[in-house]
Amino acid sequence: MTSSDFCVGDPSLPRGPQGYACKDPAKVTTDYFVYTGFRGEKTPNNVFGNNVTLAFSNVFPAFNGLGISMARLDFVVGGVIPIHSHRTSEVLILVKGSIIAGFIDTNNTAYYNRLEIGDVMVFPQAMVHFQINVGKTPATAYVSLNGANPALQLTPTSLFAGNLPANIAQKITLLSRKEVMQMQRIFGAA
Amino acid sequence: MTSSDFCVGDPSLPRGPQGYACKDPAKVTTDYFVYTGFRGEKTPNNVFGNNVTLAFSNVFPAFNGLGISMARLDFVVGGVIPIHSHRTSEVLILVKGSIIAGFIDTNNTAYYNRLEIGDVMVFPQAMVHFQINVGKTPATAYVSLNGANPALQLTPTSLFAGNLPANIAQKITLLSRKEVMQMQRIFGAA
Amino acid sequence: MTSSDFCVGDPSLPRGPQGYACKDPAKVTTDYFVYTGFRGEKTPNNVFGNNVTLAFSNVFPAFNGLGISMARLDFVVGGVIPIHSHRTSEVLILVKGSIIAGFIDTNNTAYYNRLEIGDVMVFPQAMVHFQINVGKTPATAYVSLNGANPALQLTPTSLFAGNLPANIAQKITLLSRKEVMQMQRIFGAA
Amino acid sequence: MTSSDFCVGDPSLPRGPQGYACKDPAKVTTDYFVYTGFRGEKTPNNVFGNNVTLAFSNVFPAFNGLGISMARLDFVVGGVIPIHSHRTSEVLILVKGSIIAGFIDTNNTAYYNRLEIGDVMVFPQAMVHFQINVGKTPATAYVSLNGANPALQLTPTSLFAGNLPANIAQKITLLSRKEVMQMQRIFGAA
Amino acid sequence: MTSSDFCVGDPSLPRGPQGYACKDPAKVTTDYFVYTGFRGEKTPNNVFGNNVTLAFSNVFPAFNGLGISMARLDFVVGGVIPIHSHRTSEVLILVKGSIIAGFIDTNNTAYYNRLEIGDVMVFPQAMVHFQINVGKTPATAYVSLNGANPALQLTPTSLFAGNLPANIAQKITLLSRKEVMQMQRIFGAA
Amino acid sequence: MTSSDFCVGDPSLPRGPQGYACKDPAKVTTDYFVYTGFRGEKTPNNVFGNNVTLAFSNVFPAFNGLGISMARLDFVVGGVIPIHSHRTSEVLILVKGSIIAGFIDTNNTAYYNRLEIGDVMVFPQAMVHFQINVGKTPATAYVSLNGANPALQLTPTSLFAGNLPANIAQKITLLSRKEVMQMQRIFGAA
Repeated sequence: MTSSDFCVGDPSLPRGPQGYACKDPAKVTTDYFVYTGFRGEKTPNNVFGNNVTLAFSNVFPAFNGLGISMARLDFVVGGVIPIHSHRTSEVLILVKGSIIAGFIDTNNTAYYNRLEIGDVMVFPQAMVHFQINVGKTPATAYVSLNGANPALQLTPTSLFAGNLPANIAQKITLLSRKEVMQMQRIFGAA
Repeated sequence: MTSSDFCVGDPSLPRGPQGYACKDPAKVTTDYFVYTGFRGEKTPNNVFGNNVTLAFSNVFPAFNGLGISMARLDFVVGGVIPIHSHRTSEVLILVKGSIIAGFIDTNNTAYYNRLEIGDVMVFPQAMVHFQINVGKTPATAYVSLNGANPALQLTPTSLFAGNLPANIAQKITLLSRKEVMQMQRIFGAA
Repeated sequence: MTSSDFCVGDPSLPRGPQGYACKDPAKVTTDYFVYTGFRGEKTPNNVFGNNVTLAFSNVFPAFNGLGISMARLDFVVGGVIPIHSHRTSEVLILVKGSIIAGFIDTNNTAYYNRLEIGDVMVFPQAMVHFQINVGKTPATAYVSLNGANPALQLTPTSLFAGNLPANIAQKITLLSRKEVMQMQRIFGAA
Repeated sequence: MTSSDFCVGDPSLPRGPQGYACKDPAKVTTDYFVYTGFRGEKTPNNVFGNNVTLAFSNVFPAFNGLGISMARLDFVVGGVIPIHSHRTSEVLILVKGSIIAGFIDTNNTAYYNRLEIGDVMVFPQAMVHFQINVGKTPATAYVSLNGANPALQLTPTSLFAGNLPANIAQKITLLSRKEVMQMQRIFGAA
Repeated sequence: MTSSDFCVGDPSLPRGPQGYACKDPAKVTTDYFVYTGFRGEKTPNNVFGNNVTLAFSNVFPAFNGLGISMARLDFVVGGVIPIHSHRTSEVLILVKGSIIAGFIDTNNTAYYNRLEIGDVMVFPQAMVHFQINVGKTPATAYVSLNGANPALQLTPTSLFAGNLPANIAQKITLLSRKEVMQMQRIFGAA
Repeated sequence: MTSSDFCVGDPSLPRGPQGYACKDPAKVTTDYFVYTGFRGEKTPNNVFGNNVTLAFSNVFPAFNGLGISMARLDFVVGGVIPIHSHRTSEVLILVKGSIIAGFIDTNNTAYYNRLEIGDVMVFPQAMVHFQINVGKTPATAYVSLNGANPALQLTPTSLFAGNLPANIAQKITLLSRKEVMQMQRIFGAA
C-alpha cells in the first residue's frame, strides 16, 4: 500500500485550490523531504539590498499539503525587505547580524523592534511588515510561514513594477504623479 | 436548553483567537440578527472621497463565529478606496454608479475592470485591491468577506497615518523623503 | 512564473473535495473575476413566486477555492424563498422592497424580522431559513455565503420533487398521505 | 505543567464560537473521558417511535474542541428518525435490527438503502437524511458526527413544534392550512 | 446538473492534499454510501491478538472529503491494540466484552479506564493510545475518527517492523540492543 | 479602537479549545512580539544528550491564535531527540553541526537523511520522527510547527516516565518485562 501520509506535489498534474496533486508515493524517496537550497552564501544584488530565497511548495514540493513553508532572508549592510504581506502568519529567527523588524496593524500602529542573534519575532496573519538591516555587518534570517503557498506580496513592486497604470497607482495611493513615475523608473516599468 | 447554533458576541467578556465569547443565548432576540447601519444615504467626507461603513463582528456581533461580514462603500464622483487588503477573500456587488475595481497578484499583475450596476467582482484572499468611482455620479457597492473579523488594512494610512517613523517608511518603500513627508501631512501625522 | 494566488475552476479537469482544479493561470484574464449574471431584471416565474440566480463556483469559477459565493433573490409580491438550508452561513442585504426573513434554530425557535431596504440579516450555518415578500412591490435581495459551493437545499423540493417515494416522505414527515400526494403534484413528481 | 492536549468543557465559563472554555486540566480525571449514557436499554416513547440519546459536547464535555461527537438511535418496530440535518457529516453503524437509511442531495435525488447489522452508511455534510426501522424487531444504531456541537435540526419540529406562526409555516412549505394545523397539533404547538 | 454535495473518491484519478478526486457523480449510486465490510465475525490472528478492519477513505471512498472514517476492532481474550496514534481525534464505543482503553498526554499522564458494553471513550487528537481486552470473552469495538484519512501509526511496528535500522531504533528509544533485535524478530524484520 | 489583528494570550483568563483568551490589546506593546529565549548557548544535560527550548504559545503568548510556533534543539556529540510526534507538521533547519533526521510513515517506512548546515527537512503531520547528532561537534537546529500549541509527545517518556503501569506498558509494546523495568529506571519512574 502506498502512503497517504504526505502529498509531495507533482507540478505536472493539475493544481487544485489546496495545492498540487500528489506525486506517486511509490516514487517518493527520502531526498524529497530535504531542501538544500539554503546552503552557502547568498549575495543580495537588487535595489533593496536583499536576497530572498523562497522555499514555498512550488520550489520544495514536500511542503505541499502540509501547511508550512520557509524562506531565507539575506541583507547587505543597510539592506531591507520592503513592506510586504502574506496570506499567513510568519515567524522570523535572526541568525546573523542585527535588524529592525516590524509590522503595522489595522489601527496604523507599528510594532517594531531591534533584534539580536537568536531573537524570534512573529508577524500576525496578513499584516504588512518589513525588515531592515541596521547593523554594521550583513544579516541573515530564516522565516517560517504557516501555509505551503503563503504568497509574498511586496507593496512597492505590486504598485510600480507590474502592469498597473500610473494614473491608477497615483489615484489609489495619493502619491504625486512625479513620485509614481520615479518609482516606476526604479522598477523598470516605465 | 439554550441554543448553541450561534454565538452572538459579547464584547464585555474576554475575546479569544476565534472571536468574542457568546452572549447568553437566552437573551438573544431576533433583533440581534439584523443590522440596520447600512440604511439611508452615506456622505463621503474624507480625503479619499469615500465613506466606508464596516459591519464586522465588533459592530454587528451576530457575525461572531459565523465566518462572514459585510461593508458598504460609498464614493463621490472620482472617489476611491485606496489600495488595501484583508485576511480573507472579498466579493463586491455594485448597486449604484460605475467603478473600476481591481486587485494585484504576487507577480505584480493587476486585474482590473470597469463594473456596471449589478456586476460582481471577487478579490482573492489577502491580495491588495482598490476601487475607483469613474462614473459621473456617486457610486455605492456592498462587499462581503468570508471572516467575521476580516481586517481592513489600508496601505497608505498604514505607512503614513500612524506611528511609523518617516525614515523607516522611506526605507521600506523607496519613496523620496519629500514624498513621505508630504504623505504624512496628508494624513495629519507629521 | 504563473500565479497561485487564485484557482479559477476548470470544470473540464477532475474535481476534488475542495473544488475544481485550477485553470492555467496564464490563461486567466481579468474578465474571469467579474460576474455579470446579476445584471438587469429577473422575472420570477415558478410556483414560489421567486427567481433565484445562483453565483456559486460552478457558475462563476473565480469563486473556486476562495470560500465565498453569492446569489440574487427576486420576489413577486407575495413571493417566497421556501424553507431551505446551506452548508455555510449566509448574509442577506435587501436592495428593493420589504421582506420578512427568518431562521429556525435547533430548539425550534424561529427568529424572523421585517427588513427594509439596506437591512442586513445573517443566517447561522446550516440552520433552515426563509424569505417572504410582504411588501406591496417586487423585492430584490443579494446574499453571500462563506463557501464557494455552499449548497442550496430546499426542503419542499427535497421531499416532494425528486425520487423519494411517497411512503417514505410520509413516514419521515408525519404528513398525511393526501398532503404528500398533493405536494408531489405541485412539483410534478407524481 | 497542566495539559493543553484537551479542553474538557466547563459550562460554568463563557462559551466561545469554537466551544466551551476548558475546565482546569489539573481537575480533569480519567473519568471525564468516558461517557456511560449509552448503557442499557433505551425505550422510545415519542410520536416518531424513536429514542435519540445525544452525546454532544454539552452532554459529554470531553468532546469539546475535539471535533467529534456521537448519538445512539433506538427505534420501535416501524419507528423513524424524521427528516433532519446537521452542520457536519455523519456516519451510522447499525448494531441491532434492520433499517432503511437515506439522504437527499441538492438535486432532490434520494440515496437510500436497507442496512443490516454491521453496515455503515455516511450522510454528507448538511444534507437532510432519515432512518426508518423496517425490520420486525426494535433496532439500534450509533452515529458519529465530525463536530463537537454538530446540531440536530429536525425539519418537522422546526416548522411545527416551535414559535413559527402557522401562516409563515404554510407560506414557506406550500402545505395546506389544514395540514399545517394538524402538524402543529401533533407537536402540541397549536 | 450533477451533484457536488459529495465527492466519492476515484483512486484512478490523481490524489490531492485533501483526498482523492471525485468520481463522476452521475455514476455514483446509493450503494456507494454503504460499507458492508464490518459484517460478520472477525478473527484476530496476529501477534497482538487483534483484528483491525479499517474503513478509511481508501477502503470506503464515500468518506473522501467528508472528514470522517471508521474502524472495527476485534480482540481475542487478552488481545491488545498496541500503542498508536492518528492525525485526528477518535471516539470508541464498546459493543462486546470489556476492555481497558487509555491515552497518554504530553505530560506523560496516562488516562485509562475499564469500559463496559455501551461505553464511549474519546482520545484527543494525535495522543498515543491503546486498548486491551481484559475480559473473559472476545471483545469488539467500533471507532470513528474525524478525518477521512486519519492515519493509523502503530508505535511498535513503526520502530521495528519496517526499514528503520536497528542502531537508529536503539538510539531513539534508549532500548537495549538486545531488546531491539528481539522486537525486530517479533515483526519479522530481522 | 483596540486591535483585533492579534490575540496575545493571557494565561490568567480561561483558555478555550483554540487557545488562550486575548490580553487587552491596549496593553500589548511591541516587546510582546519578540521572543528572546533562544539567545546564547544551551547546554544539554539530560539522558538523551539534548536541550529542547520550546517556544509554544504558553511560553511565547504572541503565538496564540496565529497557528505557528518554534523550538530550538541543541545536541551534544551523539545527542538525540528521541522518537516523538506533534499534532502538526514540522520543518527543521540545521544551523550548526551535522545530524540525521527522519520520520516514519504509517507503512513503517522510515525516511531519514544526513543534514548539513542550512539544510531543511519537513516532517509530515503527526508522523513519529527523530534527530540524532552524528557529527563530531555539538549541533543546533531550529524547528517551526504550524500550530501555536502543537504538542511534543516523546514516545519513550510517554510509556516509561509517567504513571502508566509497567504491566500495561509491557502489554501495549510487546517489550519484555525486564526491559520495561529498565526503561522506567532510566526515567526515574520505578
